[in-house]
Amino acid sequence: MSPKPGVRGAVARLDAVLVESGDNGARVYAENQRSTCEELGIEYRLHVLPAGAGFDDIAGRVLLLNHDEAVSAIMVHMPLPEGIDPYRVQRLIDPDKDVEGVNPANIGNIVYGHSSLAPCTALAAVKMIESTDITLRGKRAVVVGASNVVGKPIAVLLMRQDATVVSCNVWTEGLAELCRSADVLVAAAGSAGLITAAMVKPGAVVIDVGVNRVPGPDGRLKTVGDVAFDEVREIAGWLSPVPGGVGPMTIAMLLLNVAEAALGAGSDA
Amino acid sequence: MSPKPGVRGAVARLDAVLVESGDNGARVYAENQRSTCEELGIEYRLHVLPAGAGFDDIAGRVLLLNHDEAVSAIMVHMPLPEGIDPYRVQRLIDPDKDVEGVNPANIGNIVYGHSSLAPCTALAAVKMIESTDITLRGKRAVVVGASNVVGKPIAVLLMRQDATVVSCNVWTEGLAELCRSADVLVAAAGSAGLITAAMVKPGAVVIDVGVNRVPGPDGRLKTVGDVAFDEVREIAGWLSPVPGGVGPMTIAMLLLNVAEAALGAGSDA
Repeated sequence: MSPKPGVRGAVARLDAVLVESGDNGARVYAENQRSTCEELGIEYRLHVLPAGAGFDDIAGRVLLLNHDEAVSAIMVHMPLPEGIDPYRVQRLIDPDKDVEGVNPANIGNIVYGHSSLAPCTALAAVKMIESTDITLRGKRAVVVGASNVVGKPIAVLLMRQDATVVSCNVWTEGLAELCRSADVLVAAAGSAGLITAAMVKPGAVVIDVGVNRVPGPDGRLKTVGDVAFDEVREIAGWLSPVPGGVGPMTIAMLLLNVAEAALGAGSDA
Repeated sequence: MSPKPGVRGAVARLDAVLVESGDNGARVYAENQRSTCEELGIEYRLHVLPAGAGFDDIAGRVLLLNHDEAVSAIMVHMPLPEGIDPYRVQRLIDPDKDVEGVNPANIGNIVYGHSSLAPCTALAAVKMIESTDITLRGKRAVVVGASNVVGKPIAVLLMRQDATVVSCNVWTEGLAELCRSADVLVAAAGSAGLITAAMVKPGAVVIDVGVNRVPGPDGRLKTVGDVAFDEVREIAGWLSPVPGGVGPMTIAMLLLNVAEAALGAGSDA
């Protein structure tokens, strides 16, 4: 593939590793990824390993892709076969090609304030906050949920922007009061309807990162966030919807990271 | 050197890189380090580079030490010559030998909750909190100061222990009130006497990470922390002094990291 005009000569190529499983979800996601990449002029190569693939097979493929100069971006689809710790695979991905931001070095770079490929969901939440033009410096940001891949990285990204950051978890006392003090409220707890109108400061920026499957009025499962949308929309200044909102933005962030990796923007050299 | 009895056969060897400078402080620190290491049966080798050493010289030495299987621990003394970004050097240190915890991968491992060589000062503060036997889960921990090497890593280490963590900085509004809500208060702002008795909850654990040089009653400079010690000691349940407290504990944490690196405890393999 020759570079597209305007891409400063760099070819973006995303190589994804997928291990076959009974679950078809990852395969569907990968094929959607391929068509989106093709639309954008990003070369996409899917490396499918058989269901019996072990750690050595997956790790070996990742190391090969690290080594291949034609590959600018790498991601590994989940789930991996039972018994294989995703972290052991993710930490092998070259930090400069790690477009999902899952290598610990990329989290560390965020703490240190260096440009980095950040975890996509965390990046999506922060980009949505920035899109409101709020100045984070000196503002109170409350993050509900402290998971390793979402809540903690969001908290660190907000610290980096000089917000006063409150990280809450399931054991937090006085959650409602803390949330009410938030100029920016990020819900990433994975608990449908957790954030009610009474917990939101009028005019606050509310970002809903939750993805929960609950029975709808017709008895069929539907996707909702952590925020009681209909009541909170009456009081929040900004509110991101679920579905929509952070989900599609996360995919956009992945593709942004692919472009940045191709241009070397993720490196500190 | 042969292994000491009880060290499970592992030899701990710390190699430190120091670039000559007009400032004698680092050299004195390095010599103190040598004698402490000798007392503890840790082999210590100091690599002194001339004042004119450039990035390539320092980086090359670090890569050589990474490669040397006899070296279990590496640290680079500050300051480096003007114009050399310490981060560019620190990120080259093998994460498994990085006993100061300055490689971004080691910060990222903390976020991800994997065993890791954490930055020594942050580790010292958290170990002192743990020594009070407080259960951090569900407690409110307020960290005043959000520097990359101290405040942010402390916040992340406390999140990892399921505390509700509030990260404050110089732009934080309502600082006194936030501090008063803290079961655990960590002062890492670098501002003498910032934390007064009125900002402390009775019985709270207060850890003073500040190191400030201020004129004493006799006009000579003395070292004080961020906490107004004499008044806060009347109200806090626990209070770490400055000097003493976190400072010596930081050196102990470095040596603990040296021992852990020798035993391979810092790796996730």
